Amino acid sequence: MSQTKKIILGLDPGLADTGFGVIAKLGSHLSFIDAGSIRTAKSQNFIDRLVIIHRTVDQLIKKYRPDLIGVEKLYFAKNVKTALDVGQARGVTLLAIAQNHKDMVEFTPLQIKQTIAANGQATKKQVGLMVKTILCLRQVPRPDDAADALAAAITAAFFNKKLA
Amino acid sequence: MSQTKKIILGLDPGLADTGFGVIAKLGSHLSFIDAGSIRTAKSQNFIDRLVIIHRTVDQLIKKYRPDLIGVEKLYFAKNVKTALDVGQARGVTLLAIAQNHKDMVEFTPLQIKQTIAANGQATKKQVGLMVKTILCLRQVPRPDDAADALAAAITAAFFNKKLA
Repeated sequence: MSQTKKIILGLDPGLADTGFGVIAKLGSHLSFIDAGSIRTAKSQNFIDRLVIIHRTVDQLIKKYRPDLIGVEKLYFAKNVKTALDVGQARGVTLLAIAQNHKDMVEFTPLQIKQTIAANGQATKKQVGLMVKTILCLRQVPRPDDAADALAAAITAAFFNKKLA
Repeated sequence: MSQTKKIILGLDPGLADTGFGVIAKLGSHLSFIDAGSIRTAKSQNFIDRLVIIHRTVDQLIKKYRPDLIGVEKLYFAKNVKTALDVGQARGVTLLAIAQNHKDMVEFTPLQIKQTIAANGQATKKQVGLMVKTILCLRQVPRPDDAADALAAAITAAFFNKKLA
């Protein structure tokens, strides 16, 4: 059976910045397709920020038609206020995934760091450098959220049996 | 100019229970239309719970076509885990409001208690009894989340100038 190319979308949900990264997997080879960050400003109406996040994630899914989506799981936050904000942004992100009937896998930051850098305590810089190496990029992806989202996509590519 | 009847939807967002209450305002008279709770079970897939909450809030808005929506604002939570869960449920609730282009006003539990029971420290039981009295109901609305949502709707009715 010939190998088919699989598309994987990684997402790192947040209110101000939702990182996204799109990669392709052909056999054991991973390649970069797209990455960036969905940004919303504090000056914007809160509810409008949620609409932008939901709409953009929906558009990304419709554009790239991923076979699998890897999402960074949040277990902690600085405080309850931050958790509420991130939670609301994350809620509309997960909703867009569900509404598009896409499979989702979640990974903790620890799992992602262990997969990408073989070290659960890896710094953002180390993760960025490994993402650059794995995807044969010329530069470390920017901003940080985009690199984190690519790291989530790579982790999903490594872990998911469906993509073998 | 003759008075027109305005419809107000109150919502008390949560992951396991999202309370809703619908009232009508004609001049200074408030009347009960509907109330209840959107329930999702722990045994359900988390993402499915978000879909159910979003869809049901959307259906309620389309059914009752509220002129205004009052939402209970959450400033605190037991812990970060709870805040993340409530945040995600609240995010999809606010999204449904925005997608239906509805006006929303938010009130803290303190503001709602002060409005309904003239006491920011009022108990759930006191709020329930006042909701019963204000809406001329035979019984206190059940469950608690439905009573809280009606209280949010009543608070919105009292405060919003557009409805005068």
